[in-house]
Amino acid sequence: MIGLDHEQQAARAAFEGLRDRICATFEAIEREAGSDAAFDYAAWEREPAGGGGGVRGLMKGRVFEKVGVNVSTVGGAFAPEFAKSIHGAAEDPNFFATGISLVAHMANPHVPAVHMNCRFLCTTKRWFGGGADLNPPLPRADDSEAFHARFKAACDAHDPAYYPRYRAWADDYFWIPHRQVHRGVGGIFFDHLEGDFMTNFAFVQDVGAAFLDIFPAIVRARMDMPWTDADRAAMLAFRGRYAEFNLVYDRGTLFGLKTGGNIDAILMSLPPLATWE
Amino acid sequence: MIGLDHEQQAARAAFEGLRDRICATFEAIEREAGSDAAFDYAAWEREPAGGGGGVRGLMKGRVFEKVGVNVSTVGGAFAPEFAKSIHGAAEDPNFFATGISLVAHMANPHVPAVHMNCRFLCTTKRWFGGGADLNPPLPRADDSEAFHARFKAACDAHDPAYYPRYRAWADDYFWIPHRQVHRGVGGIFFDHLEGDFMTNFAFVQDVGAAFLDIFPAIVRARMDMPWTDADRAAMLAFRGRYAEFNLVYDRGTLFGLKTGGNIDAILMSLPPLATWE
Repeated sequence: MIGLDHEQQAARAAFEGLRDRICATFEAIEREAGSDAAFDYAAWEREPAGGGGGVRGLMKGRVFEKVGVNVSTVGGAFAPEFAKSIHGAAEDPNFFATGISLVAHMANPHVPAVHMNCRFLCTTKRWFGGGADLNPPLPRADDSEAFHARFKAACDAHDPAYYPRYRAWADDYFWIPHRQVHRGVGGIFFDHLEGDFMTNFAFVQDVGAAFLDIFPAIVRARMDMPWTDADRAAMLAFRGRYAEFNLVYDRGTLFGLKTGGNIDAILMSLPPLATWE
Repeated sequence: MIGLDHEQQAARAAFEGLRDRICATFEAIEREAGSDAAFDYAAWEREPAGGGGGVRGLMKGRVFEKVGVNVSTVGGAFAPEFAKSIHGAAEDPNFFATGISLVAHMANPHVPAVHMNCRFLCTTKRWFGGGADLNPPLPRADDSEAFHARFKAACDAHDPAYYPRYRAWADDYFWIPHRQVHRGVGGIFFDHLEGDFMTNFAFVQDVGAAFLDIFPAIVRARMDMPWTDADRAAMLAFRGRYAEFNLVYDRGTLFGLKTGGNIDAILMSLPPLATWE
């Protein structure tokens, strides 16, 4: 893919760098648990040729039962009927997008699953979006509070209005209407962050840094806790709800599935094993 | 629920009778396998009171890892915006529906999973719909051919045009676009079967009889076949595809989830255990 401008190059490099640090940290956690699990990376190209592509990283370890980290940088033109629904694309369907997306399903039911995503979109508008949410099968108030506190700190350093707004947005988004429950204990969700590139880019990088700071800390605190068959069964049922959310409601998943995206990358988010009793 | 007319009463009674015969046969198969598994039945009522309800039957056995059989008889008025999309409801949103729905996920990967459904709908129009499809994790041509042959015989006894039409309809319907595969090896699917009640009612009862004839025969022929860990793993991955179809595409599932249906009855179709590698 050719012709990225300076902002697009900077965003892509930041997301790839974040991916590298996250994957190195997750592999280090595996080694601490006595495993030599490592990420496998598979590159994919968007059709038609020249539309960019991405790299899907996948690790199955002792602590991380299944974790996927995707980075992708793609461009092209939205289909006319679809362009109308995208910010800034109604008058011109050309777009560029670069982003990182991560979902981790953990072996130990006491370790929360997690999702994190950051993206930079360009149509006739340019904006960042992203977020992270914690999905503990067996929720603990201290983990939930630590997760939220760390993202609140990242938000507050940029704008005191961000955390309350983005936390509420996550609560709205990660909701399973047919069960009337949230899919996890929330986090932050933001989109259409327009305006000064460097200001917003700094915020998004801090969101990534917050994730890299808090999630490994929670994993290390919980990964050696003993668990029972009942804990494991509760986790598998919890994962069924997670799959329901992603397949029925998640806009990114449905957008990908219905527009011919890379299936392996899109469905990387689904749990390795799930139950419906 | 009060005020069923003779046709509605007859359809309901036929579906409940079919349920009774199917459940007795499935329990007999469990006993042949040395298990005393039996169906648990849970009644539910549609809100608001007076809107009817149903009975969800669920069995977890040695042969049937999870099988659900729902019968429901409900009535009321569709929401105005929804009524427009329903045959015969645009001018009058009142409706009545009675039906049976069955999904079986089997313990042995050599035994196909199966789905069967029959329903009678009344708006300002009255029609039957239904179908059945076979979902073998490890497909065998002989089972697939026997299944299709039995439904072809049921169709041909009523109208030689039925089987080719309804088989093609099933192929269209049970298709997973994002994977470009069918969810199984097909069967029949039909809807909006209007006209003479007794003629169509006889056909639908024969569809139920065909199911009761062929599926237990396939189960009994395969249930004692040895299987490997790889066979079981293939089945769990196959079930992931099944869950994807039901949660992303199945109209009945999405209609139920998004209109406040009985969650346990709607999601009974989901597999007991599934994997996404």
